[in-house]
Amino acid sequence: MKIALAQLNYHIGNFEKNTASILNSIKKAKNTACDLIVFAELAICGYPPRDFLEFTDFIEQCHLNLQQIAAEAFDIAVIVGLPTHNPDKKGKNLFNSAAFICNGKIQSLHHKSLLPNYDVFDEYRYFEPSRNSNIIDFKGYKIALTICEDLWNIGEEQLYPYSPMDDLIAQHPDIMINIAASPFNYEQVDKRKAVLINNVLKYKIPLLYVNHVGAQTELIFDGSSLAINSNANIICQLKSFEEDFRIFDTDVLNSKDNSIFQEIEISKIESIHNALVLGIKDYFAKLGFKKAILGLSGGIDSAVTLVLAAKALGPENVKAILLPSQFSSQHSIDDALKLAENLKVAYEIIPIEEDYNSFENSLSPYFKGLPHDVTEENLQARIRAVVLMAFCNKFGYVLLNTSNKSEAAVGYGTLYGDMCGGLSVLGDLYKTEVYELAHFINKDKELIPHNSIIKPPSAELRPNQKDIDSLPDYEILDKILYQYIEKRKGPKELINMGFDEAIVKKTLKLVNTNEYKRYQTPPILRISPKAFGMGRRLPIVGKYLS
Amino acid sequence: MKIALAQLNYHIGNFEKNTASILNSIKKAKNTACDLIVFAELAICGYPPRDFLEFTDFIEQCHLNLQQIAAEAFDIAVIVGLPTHNPDKKGKNLFNSAAFICNGKIQSLHHKSLLPNYDVFDEYRYFEPSRNSNIIDFKGYKIALTICEDLWNIGEEQLYPYSPMDDLIAQHPDIMINIAASPFNYEQVDKRKAVLINNVLKYKIPLLYVNHVGAQTELIFDGSSLAINSNANIICQLKSFEEDFRIFDTDVLNSKDNSIFQEIEISKIESIHNALVLGIKDYFAKLGFKKAILGLSGGIDSAVTLVLAAKALGPENVKAILLPSQFSSQHSIDDALKLAENLKVAYEIIPIEEDYNSFENSLSPYFKGLPHDVTEENLQARIRAVVLMAFCNKFGYVLLNTSNKSEAAVGYGTLYGDMCGGLSVLGDLYKTEVYELAHFINKDKELIPHNSIIKPPSAELRPNQKDIDSLPDYEILDKILYQYIEKRKGPKELINMGFDEAIVKKTLKLVNTNEYKRYQTPPILRISPKAFGMGRRLPIVGKYLS
Repeated sequence: MKIALAQLNYHIGNFEKNTASILNSIKKAKNTACDLIVFAELAICGYPPRDFLEFTDFIEQCHLNLQQIAAEAFDIAVIVGLPTHNPDKKGKNLFNSAAFICNGKIQSLHHKSLLPNYDVFDEYRYFEPSRNSNIIDFKGYKIALTICEDLWNIGEEQLYPYSPMDDLIAQHPDIMINIAASPFNYEQVDKRKAVLINNVLKYKIPLLYVNHVGAQTELIFDGSSLAINSNANIICQLKSFEEDFRIFDTDVLNSKDNSIFQEIEISKIESIHNALVLGIKDYFAKLGFKKAILGLSGGIDSAVTLVLAAKALGPENVKAILLPSQFSSQHSIDDALKLAENLKVAYEIIPIEEDYNSFENSLSPYFKGLPHDVTEENLQARIRAVVLMAFCNKFGYVLLNTSNKSEAAVGYGTLYGDMCGGLSVLGDLYKTEVYELAHFINKDKELIPHNSIIKPPSAELRPNQKDIDSLPDYEILDKILYQYIEKRKGPKELINMGFDEAIVKKTLKLVNTNEYKRYQTPPILRISPKAFGMGRRLPIVGKYLS
Repeated sequence: MKIALAQLNYHIGNFEKNTASILNSIKKAKNTACDLIVFAELAICGYPPRDFLEFTDFIEQCHLNLQQIAAEAFDIAVIVGLPTHNPDKKGKNLFNSAAFICNGKIQSLHHKSLLPNYDVFDEYRYFEPSRNSNIIDFKGYKIALTICEDLWNIGEEQLYPYSPMDDLIAQHPDIMINIAASPFNYEQVDKRKAVLINNVLKYKIPLLYVNHVGAQTELIFDGSSLAINSNANIICQLKSFEEDFRIFDTDVLNSKDNSIFQEIEISKIESIHNALVLGIKDYFAKLGFKKAILGLSGGIDSAVTLVLAAKALGPENVKAILLPSQFSSQHSIDDALKLAENLKVAYEIIPIEEDYNSFENSLSPYFKGLPHDVTEENLQARIRAVVLMAFCNKFGYVLLNTSNKSEAAVGYGTLYGDMCGGLSVLGDLYKTEVYELAHFINKDKELIPHNSIIKPPSAELRPNQKDIDSLPDYEILDKILYQYIEKRKGPKELINMGFDEAIVKKTLKLVNTNEYKRYQTPPILRISPKAFGMGRRLPIVGKYLS
């Protein structure tokens, strides 16, 4: 039997586009005499559809589009994901389902049993977990069809008391097919492979795995769909960060051929780079925008953001604005200009000093006699945001936010100032990771001026300011933040790891008391296992370690 | 047996304060010879603790505080809610539990079976649902102890396939006790009573119900704890929006006395008013802030917000800033001044024209020849935000956001402009509800100038601008929004209800395409069954009805 895997870039709620691209793949599979084609989890509506699932009309659209797809499923069988109604009066009213279609008809529906409800996932918000699993009998093959998380309850610590594949294996399937929506993070690709290989080792039949590709706001799906033979060897990994289409013969999946697939190893930082470029590209494409703008300071964060934006959108669609104040150094302006020229990106220089003086003047009756403080620093950052947003409004740019994760964590940024933007590109990279990315970008050629990379980080909001005046050294800070945010280590654990108690307490307090700022910041492209945003939910008025 | 219900205002993660107030209530109950005292769900850590639950240290703190409480539980039994470890290796590692304590020891733990995971609730993110329910045997009484949602799976449409009270009733309990964290919305108080009464009608034993009171950022808990006798009559409702403490004798709960409790009826709008005042008060108290500031325009939204802030914080802690531009009408300034004087709130008048001219000047080389448009309107709103935030930074005010739900829904507001603020007071009230609230506030005395209420709404960002130039009449708009947002009606259903097709399509498109703006706005005090914020989760790059 020949099985095609279609790894596609869906758009949430864009039924017309999704169905067209599903039908196009079906045609391609028919032309190559495939017996079966497999699409991803919730392919028809895109993932994650979130509260659109609460609208009857949305579910109806899913069903109408399934009918359209079924109408083309002659001479080929189709597996495709969509939400379906739970006919039982008890329980939530939807299932997360896979439809098995052949001869133009929906032959069976297979519902997801294990519903991820951690980090960025909210599936139990919408779906009833299924407790029935039946195999598909097709052309003499028995297929065990599961949906994403269904295969993840394996190993030592199991999140669910039940594993649907344990039921399915009792029905003696020949092959496992898993349709998924598994977003990228820099640990996920390896973790995913290990989990899937463990399933093959446990159940001893081959596995075909189809993932989404493409970004949906903060979530970036890397694709990297897999075919694993019955010896638990990966025989193929589909492209990462691109659509792909591959055909597999079941004979190959079951052959004793142990020749291992030659994987193209890419580094962690390269995969982050590729993820971010796709994240920017899809954010603009799916919202119907073309042009990005950002404030270019001469520092490392805006430099890296500009490079990624130019790669994603083309340098002709990106505009850099330099907004120097009286505290900006000449080297910062020079570095910024050099970068814009290197990238062939259009730029403008708009000094903010006059606007700043105007505010100082209107505020002077109230602030008289009071020392300059963070107020005046924030004022500069907010004036820059006002100018940048005026360009957005006038010309249809989307402002890219250039904050990094270290700043976002400790609140080292100005709300409604440098924390503005439609999308945060680097908000899931600690400062030390931004440097790593800068080095990666410069590996063949000095795109980012060397000086932007080596100079001590500064917000340049007062004379001779350095980040290190207010914050611990990023080498230490980032390690503490990583342990606290990604690894959920508490103060005692951190101190036991050898971090200085005073720095630990100060850092955790900063993180917790700045929740209110992060609440109002743009969506952040997620590349780590724990990004700020929908995957990390904390109380604003909480009083804990603060 | 004498049972005390302690309805307290907890603070998330503030173990010291929560435990002190629990111990204080235990003392009070002991002094009045109570046999048992009951506290709310997750009382020890506050509700909702959200991802704090992922920290081992946080769970340890809960247990340490439980030990402290147990140490005082002599001559009295205590029921109190907290998260506890799931000893099973399979399933999530926590339970949402109630501890039954007597003789200084934890006698038993009772775990929640039904985990709400809709709207603002995320409990399945953290907790394993329990499938074991055992009654408590205490002083000859058999107590069926459940936690909040456990009693809500009753009636026609059941969200869960299992009801723990069905198991418990088989063990012949004498009384039901339910500890809860049930936040206010204007439908919730009646709904809650109906659900609880239905439980008594079904299980035919009395019920004591203890709720939280107080606000945790957007969620406002009204308290309104209940005692319902075996005839399904409410014999007492504890105070709404205040802490309370009441003692009930089981004899009274079981007596055939059908004299019905005299409820103090308060109107929907009065309950909303009281909820918002508590919401503001607790936001400031729990964050450790005292003083609020807002931009006072002379319009209805900022007027109502100012009144509520003055009631919550005292007029001496509230500052109004008038920020007139060349487009502000004299009547707006007069109305604003009149209100500030009525409330005895300090104010300043800071014209923004010079700041505006300064930006026009710095932007003129780039905008030359282009017509004035929404850019210049947004510019004014953003300049106001810059001034208000400068006051916040300099003097420690928290900026109150004055946007209403109609504006937030259709994106009729400026991001980083009038959409700024630490807390949105009216963001869950449609414009027509803001008027209702204004009338309620003025019922005894004209606090809000009549003119602010009767004049046509205008943003005053260009000459003679009226909201109605860009939006449907609020009387119609709000009805469509309510059906779409609260009732999840789709376009077909709305058109079938008689709304104009073009207006429906335009409105839904505005709502869906402005998701990106709402993503970055302050937390909104929730008073409806479906508020923007954590309870309504939609994709930004979605392409549906847009």
